[in-house]
Order: sequence, then structure tokens, then C-alpha cells
Amino acid sequence: MNAADPHRLLPTEPHLQHIAAELLGATEQLPIISPHGHVPAEMLAEDRPFPNPAELLVSGDHYLTRLLHAGGVSLERLGVGGHAADPREVWRTVAAHWTLFAGTATGYWLTEELREVFGITTDLTADSADEIYDQISGRLSTDAFRPRALLRQFGIDVLATTDDPLDDLHHHRTLQDAGYRVLPTFRPDRFLDPGTSGFADAIAQLLAAEAQPGTFTGYLEALRARRRHFIDHGAVSTDHGVLTPDTIDLDPAEADALFHRVLRGAATADDAHRFRAHMLLQMAAMSVEDGMVMTVHPGVFRGHSTATLQRFGPDTGHDIPVTTRFVDGLRPVLERFGLEPGFHLILFTVDETTYSREIAPLAGFYPSVYIGAPWWFLDAPDAIARFRSAVTETAGFYRGSGFIDDTRAFLSIPARHNTARRVDAGFLARLVAQGRLTLDQAQRIAVDLVDTIPRKAFKL
Amino acid sequence: MNAADPHRLLPTEPHLQHIAAELLGATEQLPIISPHGHVPAEMLAEDRPFPNPAELLVSGDHYLTRLLHAGGVSLERLGVGGHAADPREVWRTVAAHWTLFAGTATGYWLTEELREVFGITTDLTADSADEIYDQISGRLSTDAFRPRALLRQFGIDVLATTDDPLDDLHHHRTLQDAGYRVLPTFRPDRFLDPGTSGFADAIAQLLAAEAQPGTFTGYLEALRARRRHFIDHGAVSTDHGVLTPDTIDLDPAEADALFHRVLRGAATADDAHRFRAHMLLQMAAMSVEDGMVMTVHPGVFRGHSTATLQRFGPDTGHDIPVTTRFVDGLRPVLERFGLEPGFHLILFTVDETTYSREIAPLAGFYPSVYIGAPWWFLDAPDAIARFRSAVTETAGFYRGSGFIDDTRAFLSIPARHNTARRVDAGFLARLVAQGRLTLDQAQRIAVDLVDTIPRKAFKL
Amino acid sequence: MNAADPHRLLPTEPHLQHIAAELLGATEQLPIISPHGHVPAEMLAEDRPFPNPAELLVSGDHYLTRLLHAGGVSLERLGVGGHAADPREVWRTVAAHWTLFAGTATGYWLTEELREVFGITTDLTADSADEIYDQISGRLSTDAFRPRALLRQFGIDVLATTDDPLDDLHHHRTLQDAGYRVLPTFRPDRFLDPGTSGFADAIAQLLAAEAQPGTFTGYLEALRARRRHFIDHGAVSTDHGVLTPDTIDLDPAEADALFHRVLRGAATADDAHRFRAHMLLQMAAMSVEDGMVMTVHPGVFRGHSTATLQRFGPDTGHDIPVTTRFVDGLRPVLERFGLEPGFHLILFTVDETTYSREIAPLAGFYPSVYIGAPWWFLDAPDAIARFRSAVTETAGFYRGSGFIDDTRAFLSIPARHNTARRVDAGFLARLVAQGRLTLDQAQRIAVDLVDTIPRKAFKL
Repeated sequence: MNAADPHRLLPTEPHLQHIAAELLGATEQLPIISPHGHVPAEMLAEDRPFPNPAELLVSGDHYLTRLLHAGGVSLERLGVGGHAADPREVWRTVAAHWTLFAGTATGYWLTEELREVFGITTDLTADSADEIYDQISGRLSTDAFRPRALLRQFGIDVLATTDDPLDDLHHHRTLQDAGYRVLPTFRPDRFLDPGTSGFADAIAQLLAAEAQPGTFTGYLEALRARRRHFIDHGAVSTDHGVLTPDTIDLDPAEADALFHRVLRGAATADDAHRFRAHMLLQMAAMSVEDGMVMTVHPGVFRGHSTATLQRFGPDTGHDIPVTTRFVDGLRPVLERFGLEPGFHLILFTVDETTYSREIAPLAGFYPSVYIGAPWWFLDAPDAIARFRSAVTETAGFYRGSGFIDDTRAFLSIPARHNTARRVDAGFLARLVAQGRLTLDQAQRIAVDLVDTIPRKAFKL
Repeated sequence: MNAADPHRLLPTEPHLQHIAAELLGATEQLPIISPHGHVPAEMLAEDRPFPNPAELLVSGDHYLTRLLHAGGVSLERLGVGGHAADPREVWRTVAAHWTLFAGTATGYWLTEELREVFGITTDLTADSADEIYDQISGRLSTDAFRPRALLRQFGIDVLATTDDPLDDLHHHRTLQDAGYRVLPTFRPDRFLDPGTSGFADAIAQLLAAEAQPGTFTGYLEALRARRRHFIDHGAVSTDHGVLTPDTIDLDPAEADALFHRVLRGAATADDAHRFRAHMLLQMAAMSVEDGMVMTVHPGVFRGHSTATLQRFGPDTGHDIPVTTRFVDGLRPVLERFGLEPGFHLILFTVDETTYSREIAPLAGFYPSVYIGAPWWFLDAPDAIARFRSAVTETAGFYRGSGFIDDTRAFLSIPARHNTARRVDAGFLARLVAQGRLTLDQAQRIAVDLVDTIPRKAFKL
Repeated sequence: MNAADPHRLLPTEPHLQHIAAELLGATEQLPIISPHGHVPAEMLAEDRPFPNPAELLVSGDHYLTRLLHAGGVSLERLGVGGHAADPREVWRTVAAHWTLFAGTATGYWLTEELREVFGITTDLTADSADEIYDQISGRLSTDAFRPRALLRQFGIDVLATTDDPLDDLHHHRTLQDAGYRVLPTFRPDRFLDPGTSGFADAIAQLLAAEAQPGTFTGYLEALRARRRHFIDHGAVSTDHGVLTPDTIDLDPAEADALFHRVLRGAATADDAHRFRAHMLLQMAAMSVEDGMVMTVHPGVFRGHSTATLQRFGPDTGHDIPVTTRFVDGLRPVLERFGLEPGFHLILFTVDETTYSREIAPLAGFYPSVYIGAPWWFLDAPDAIARFRSAVTETAGFYRGSGFIDDTRAFLSIPARHNTARRVDAGFLARLVAQGRLTLDQAQRIAVDLVDTIPRKAFKL
């Protein structure tokens, strides 16, 4: 990527590019709102210097390690899953295989991080690997490159993390006391899915934490209490990673019986499915009660490679999207709460066929439904452009969530938001040039997309 | 939208735009053929002045009201479903929320209607709402804005309506006697789907209307007779709104037993499905007999919000697309009639994944299968461009239906056809500029798309 | 198509076109690698002059005959399936219906073949049909237009055919002895799918050919032996045309029982499915053993029109794509062999929704999985561009198979590869112009896409 090209990712036709650059000018310097992601609060709370370039930029970023793995590099060699690996060797391995990333989103982001965060414009090659490694290392030892300093430098106004319901959230408290708006997000998957290993133990812990009895009612009460704990620590949303967005409304007696069945391990596959689906509906019910925004990230087959999962753990690159169906699955929850004032349900997808067919039509009718920004395999320049084209004609710009980086790669946050701003500027520029929007309208929309729209969707 | 931009919706690259403008010049003034839509014949037959801007442009247009509803406006306030609402307040509400429509198809059409039909180029805002309302009102009270005058002014050569099989069609007769080519379309859904409320009563009425006995044979005979009645009143097509395009070929004894089961309310869900699927095949059989073109509009979950359905009725914005599968479902009907000379089966979809995967391949082999134009959520500029890209390389231009507006918003007809002509001009211009068509070829295709192609597909 | 336009199929924006032309300059003259297709080895081995333009260009090309059939031309008149037809009349019929092909991939290829292979730049019309027929005929009688001469003139470095496991492959031996790199491909569908007519007889022949006993073990051994025979004749890959890419891992006793059930015709539909799925996994196991690359072409409903199949045979234009799901179906085989060094599994699809959702994510993790080039209904300019956009951001350029022509239309091979090179040049040019790749990177990728990438994927 041309290091200094101010028009990168914009349309190439001169007239369009000119309009896009003007729109980008209105947003490029605005603060970043990051209402959903996976940066650990602990990292920011403790504010220790990052250990080395490999741990910071490679080993924990499954976007990067997965494609190296596909290219024949073992995950051990990359230090994935806590495997010991010499960081300089890890970095050299990335450099030697850098051509794999040409044209990928991951490739853009890392290039952008090197340039914008570290000021490195040398191309990454086997020859330049050591020099670049040393440059990064040098900077990481300075105060300007410690986590909180970067958080400020990146202009991140709000940063949401993703947290376990039993987390005491003291890191968030620390950060908020220090004036940082770092918000926890309630992610209860392991307490809602009987298929998770250790499910009964998790429930026992949850009940104990809130001194609730081992009934379905006690279980719901304990979840409610943990949500209140999160709200008390600034949380505005809950997040749900589910295989399918199915929901079921059960009567209390049936739900109670099902709860005991799944707890004793006597549940059939259908029982487990019904339990998960009912609990997704219960989470919506609690959102209606306590006002937390509900985000759903469905449709990913997690841990597709058992051998890799066993050796390296989850989130190591072998989660694969599957087809997702929202319209039937979400109907029970929308029948109950779809018209409820104040209920916000943000739908993400990795099945882009659902944008024009299901998500935009749902968000174009139900006031509670918001269109989640392109996620995971889809948060890349061309994919974002396809997303805008797929949803806008049905649902406009104001039924969306705003851009979400959803990343555990802290340093990639500015690059990801900048990419989205550039692609949106290009999309809007085309609508202006085709007489579909005035330049004034487009400018207001460009700003709203990074400001009022995410603030409204996430109640910030 | 720039009020006077002659290049709106065309490609923005100068060379492409020049070619597209030339192609558009060949079609923009040609008459409109509208072989499928939902304008009521009664409105044209009675030719009364339109009551007010809100009833004309807002309350009955679920494209418009659904997005306002998503934006937090109650359907009552918009006068949906016959709820009383002050028309000026309805219009002010639209104006106050106009930003929701930026970038949407509905937004383009209404802007275009205001400009081209009413000559209003002021931007619609909360401030300009009253002035624009008064301008529209003023014009509606003049003879030039009565339905038939607009029909002529719009240059609509053929307009098909959608009608109940028991309709006596006297409005169509009146219009035809007065020289207007307004054709009824036979839409028998409520007589074919046992899931429709009041199904048994509907069948009883149908049998009574044609003095047929309560047997499956009598039922088929009654449907045949109603079709003849439609043909006698100028109908050229039948239309079928089904959840799935499944078809089943049953032997007469089984069909008769099934008929009695569904009539007595003793049908299982599977029975109902088989009955619907068999009746879709029977409709094809009748089309082979009587020559009526068969159009199928599958894949919409109707009435997704029960509360809204009960309060405001059907067609009020909560119909949501679902995945559709044509290849297996249509096989029985194509095995029976797919190679039958003169049989025309036009396939519409709101699942755009089926364009390249199923519909274009089917229409690229079976002489009976035609590709329906982009429909409902897909009849917008970008979606039409995606459609052309998805189907043309497999099936060319001559296996399509021509553009269909499918609208109950009478005033939007010219805007919709104009949009399609512009997008098609842009698509063809690219093929010319890339050396894939000569300009002469493209010009002939552009004209055929709005003239010979719909006339052939719909036997006009 | 403009006969001499050097910029055909390139982007039309001048700056992009300039870059694309430069990239194309680096690849347009490179040799063709065709690692999967359906040209008969016999044709090249015997090297007889082609009989006439109709047999060469029309009757056997189901891409061409299917659209004529859709346009109302009977397959008899086109000489499909061995039906006698006057070749000049066949050609006149094509010419009279040539407008059907405007905008189609088939139309581009035939235009390109006429121009580049035969030097004919006259537009094909009813009037010019006879003259063009005579020009082609005249050339076909010369030595320069015999199969081997064309193979050399086309610059085809490697050509793979598709062959029956019982083929003795003497034509391949002949060609290899004469210095041509024409490689067989092992296509065992009829020995793996109990649904194929004559399945038991086929198995009996297979066992007899390798003197194996009628046990499941003997059956596997016979397949192994035939694969060795193919390897001994230069084969590098096996190919599998399956309805679904489902795989199942069975224990030997169950597999043996199933084998006997399917052989005696006592198999249920589920048995047949399990047998097919298990045999696809067994093929992978053998690929791990013997190193042959495994290509899978799933998701086509073959023989959709029974009447056509019975009269004209298979491969006569009525094979229709259906939805395909890779992630669950392939899991058993990837659990067993997905991380196996040296195993190559190339996934093709006619369901383009799987590119971004399933295939790119799988190939972006598993070192064994390669992204098959756009296939069949998708190997056309716009579809190739959609493919690149869908897969590149997740998996880059180096996890693909390189372009595959997959054709039985020998003369279309250069046109197809040239089309892919042009579209890829346009795609890369955009990435360069948008600052996503340097020109140097793009040039190396453009060359790799037609050289190192297919050589690596197919172990050439």
C-alpha cells in the first residue's frame, strides 16, 4: 500500500474521488466510537508496555495466524495458544509469508498500523523484517506506546470490551475512575448454552455468586443480578454468540423442566437447542426490563478443527461461517418484544446473503431491529461496499449500528475505522454523483455514521 | 436528488455516462408497459379526484410507512389500515422523518414524483412540508390530476391490475370500453391455500358462483370457468403469491381425498403444503390449456408481526423475504409442462441469491421459464444492477420479463420505469465500453427491454 | 464485440484501464495451463481434421445449445445427442438466433474464437451465416486447424482431460510419447454413486479389471489400483461431481455392510447418501496416500428434464445449480485429513454465496483447502469479478486454484483463459489505483495467477 496516498480506498474515477475526499475530510479526524470489541480491559487498566512486536501484532490475532497456517506455517511457530516461540522468529515468519496477505483486509490493517502507529513505511519483506522488528521494539519501550497513551492518541472516545458475567469488572472501574470511557459488555454464552463444556459447573458458580436457588427462576434472577452489576459498571449492551438466532417462547413450567434436564446432563440435542433458543428470548425480555442493547452474532461454526482446538484452544482461526436464517428464528422474540419501545436488537451476520433478504427488511419495519455493521470476514473494503449496496435501498442509513471493529487487535482499531470511513465516503460520493443525494445530505450522513448513529443504536 | 439532473442514476465515468445517455435517449420517451401491478381498476374506472396528498402518497404505500414505523412513528399516525389521521399531519410526519429515506428506493421515487408529476423541486423538510402539501392539494383538485388523465400523461400503454377470481371485472369492462388497456390479472391465492382464513367459505362461494359440485373436479372446473371470465375481460396472466414455489403432481384420487380433507379442516400441515403445491401445478396445467401466462411471486413471510396484522391488516409493511429454492420445488411442474409450447412461467424472487444459481440457469434451458424483473425489496437502482450482472452472462437479455413495477402507488409508476431504464442504460453502456456489445446492439436491446421483451413474455 | 479492441473486458475508467493494460501485458502471452477440462484425449491423439463448423462449435457445446433451446429451437435441429442434422442448417440456426447470446459468456467466447482462431471479424447474422460457415470450413480442411496444431498454436502447456477409471489411457500415452503434456484425470463418479444406473455392473467390471474379490476391501483395492494406473499415465488429480459435498467417516464393518446393501439394490435413499459420502472420504484417504489432488464439483442437479435426458442423453443443457453447503458436509474429511501435509482439496461451486461465507474461510485456515476458480455458470466476466471480490479479502490470491476452463469446447480454451486474465488484470488494477497493492505486487500476482498458483495447487 502506498504509504502516503491520501486517496487510498477511495473511488478512482476523478470526479467521484474528489467528492469522496471531501466527505472523508468531514469524518477522518472525528473520535472513534467502538461499542463492541475484544480488547482486554486488564491491558488498559494495568497499562504495562507491550512485550514485543510478535505478541502485540501476531500471536493473538487469529485473522493473521489463520492465513499463515493455511500457507503452511504451524501455529506453534507463531506462538499461538501460549506456545512458546521466539518473537523475532515469529516476526520473520510473517515477513517471509507476507505475500499471502496481498489484497486481504488483514494485510491492509497491518500495513496501516506500521505506517500510522509506528511511522514505518518500509515494505515488509524477509530482508526488512529485522529492521522493522527493531523499530517497533524500540517504540514499544517508550511511554508513548503504552496502552493508555495509544488509547488517547487513537482518539477513542468510547471503547467497549466483552466480558464474562462473573467478572468483578474492577479493571473497568479503575479505568473509569481514571477518566477513560471503557465499558464492559455482558457476554453470557457459557451460561446459556448447555453444549458448552463445564455448563453445570458454570451454572453452579453463577447461582452461588448471587445466592440464588437451583431453580429456573433462581437462574434467571442470578442472570438479572449480574446484568445489574454490569450496568452499574457502565455496560450498555449484552452480546450473544450463537450458532443460530433461533428463539422459542416456552411456558414457565416447561422452561423449568428443561432447565433441570440440561443441568443433569439428560438433555437431548433438541432439548439443548430449545434451551438455548428460549434463553435468547429471555435475554431479550431482560433487555426490555433493564434497557441494555442486545447484540447477536450468529452463524459461526466454532472450533471446526478439533485437533487445533485441543492443541491451541478456541479463537485460533478455525471458526467458519455457515448459512444463517433470521426471519423464522427471530419471530418468537419479535412477536413478544419487536414493537417494544426502547428495545434495541442489533443483528450481525457472516452470511452476507441475509443483508438484502432478511436484515434490511426486518430493520426497515421493526423499530427495535438495527442492522449490524459488516462483521469478521466481511469487515473489509469490498465487503463493506457490498453491505452498503445491499441494505441502503431498503433501510437507508439510519437503521444501522455504525461501524463496529469487534477486534482483539488493539492497534488495528484506527485502521479498521478509517477503512470504514473511506469506503462509506466512496459509497456516498457515488450517490451524490448519480444525483441520489445532495452533497449536503451526504456530508450529514457521513458524520452521522460515525457519531449519532452508533450513539443512538448503543444508547451511548 | 438534484431536480434537473438529466444524468441521474447513470454511470459517473464520463465516457460511460455519454454512452448511457445516448441509450437512455432511445427509451426514455417510449410508452410504459406495466404487465403486473396493484393499482385498483375501480380508481381508474370511477376517475374521481384523489382526496389528498396523504391518502394518495403515504397511507397506502407500505414501502413508505414501514420505514417510518421502523423510525418510531406509529402506523396510526400515518393513517394506515383505514385509521383516521389528519392528512396534513401525516404529511408533516413524513417531512420530519424524511432523512430516513436518504438513499432508499422509496426516497428516489417520491422525490421524482414530486418533481415530475407535480413540478415541485423544493426539498422536503419540516419547514417546507405545508407549502408542498398545499401545492400538491391544489393540483389534485384539477382535472389534469384525475386518475385517467394521469394514466394518459404517464404514457401507460398497458396496465395490468391484480384481481380476485370472483370479481365481476365490470371496472375493467368500463375502462376498456373507454379505450384504456387496463387488464385484470387472475390471483387465486385464497382459493388455493388451505391456510388462508375463511378457506372453506371461499371455496363454497367459488363453487356456487359457477354452479359446480363440491368435488375436486367441480372445484377445478370452477377455477377454469373463472379464468375464462378473466380472459374474456382481457386478462393475459395469472399470479401466485406462495411461500414456497413447491409443486407436486398427485393422482386424481389422492387429490380428491386431499381436497375433502382440507375443506373439512382435517388437514395436517403436510396436507396443506401438498394441496398448495398440487394446486400450483394445476394452475400450470390450466395455463397450458388456456394460454394465460403464469407468474409466481414466492418467498415472502406475510404478516410477520401478528400485532400489526391484527390492528392494521395485511400489506402493512411486515412481510419479510425468506430463502427460496426453485430447482427442486418446480421440478414436478417443469417435468410435466416445462417443454410445452406456449407455456410461460415467470419467476420472481426476493432472494437474490437465486438469480445466478437457479433462475437464470432454468430460464437458459426451459423455453417456458422467464426471468422475472427485480421485485419488491430489489426494484431499486443498485439491486437492478446486481440483477443484470447476475443473470445476463448465463441467460442474456431475451429470457426476461421486462421491468415490472408491481406497485399500488399509482403515481410512482413512471419513476419506477424510468429508474429501470436508467440502470439498464448504464449496464448496457458498460458492456459497450468494454467491447462486449456494439452500440447498435445495445440500442436495440435497450428498446427491446421496454417493448418487445415484455410483450413477448406476457403475450401482449 | 469490437473485433480489435485491445481493451475489451478491461475497466473503462482511463487510469484503471491503463494499469490493467500494463498488467495484462505481463500475462497475455504466457502459456495456458489447463489442469481441468473435458476435451477428449482421443481427438488429440487421432488428430483428424474437425468435420465441420457445426459439430466443432455447436452440437456438443451445451452452453450454446441450451440457450438456443430456451429460445425455442429444438435440440434435434442442433444435432445434439448424435441426432442427425445438416451442419450448415445448424450454423444458420445459430446465426438466426445470435441475439439471444448478446451479453452472455458463450457469446463472447464464440465471437473471440471466430476472430482469434479463424480470423473472422464479420458480425454473425442470418445474412453472413453462410459466408462465415464457408470460411470456417475452408480453414478446418487445412493442417493448421487440426487438433494438435491448434493445441500448439494456443500455447497450451498442460491440458488435463477427464476420464473413466477403466480407460486404458492409451491415447494419453500416445500424446505423451509425441511430447504433448496431456494428462488424464481420474473421475470415478459412476463407481461411487449407487444412484447411477448400472451401478452393480460397473462395480463388477471394476473388480474384474483388477481381479479383486467382491468385498468392500476388494472394491477399495481396485479403486487404488486404477488410481495407480492413472498416476502411471501422468494424472495429477481426481475429480468428483457430487450433488452434495457431504462426507461421512464409517467404521469398516458398517462400510462393508453398506457396500453389500447398495450392490444388491437393497439400499434406502439414506444408505445411498451415506455410501456416497463415505466414498468421498475414502477418495480423500487415497489422495493422502498417493498424492493425487482432489477436486470436488458439487451442487448441480443433473438431468433436470427427464424427457430431454432420455432423448438426448446427459450433458445436454439441463443441469441446474442448487444451494451447496460445505462447512458441515466436509467436516468429517477435514477432521481426518484437513491438516495432512501434501493433501490438496480444491472446492468448486456454482452457488456463489459460498465464496465469502464458506470456501474462502475454509481455505484461509486449512492448508489442504484450495479455492476453485469460478466454474460453469460463473466463469464469465462479471461473475469472475464478483468471485475475486468475494474471496480475496479473506484468503488473498495464493489460496486459489488458478483459472480452470473446464470445457469440452476445445476452441474456446484460449478465449476463456484470456477472459480470466483480463478480468483479473482489471481487479488488480483497481487495487493498485486504490493504494491496496503496489504495481510491482500486482504484476507479480498477475503472473503467479496463471503460472505458479495453478502449478502449486495441481502439483504440476
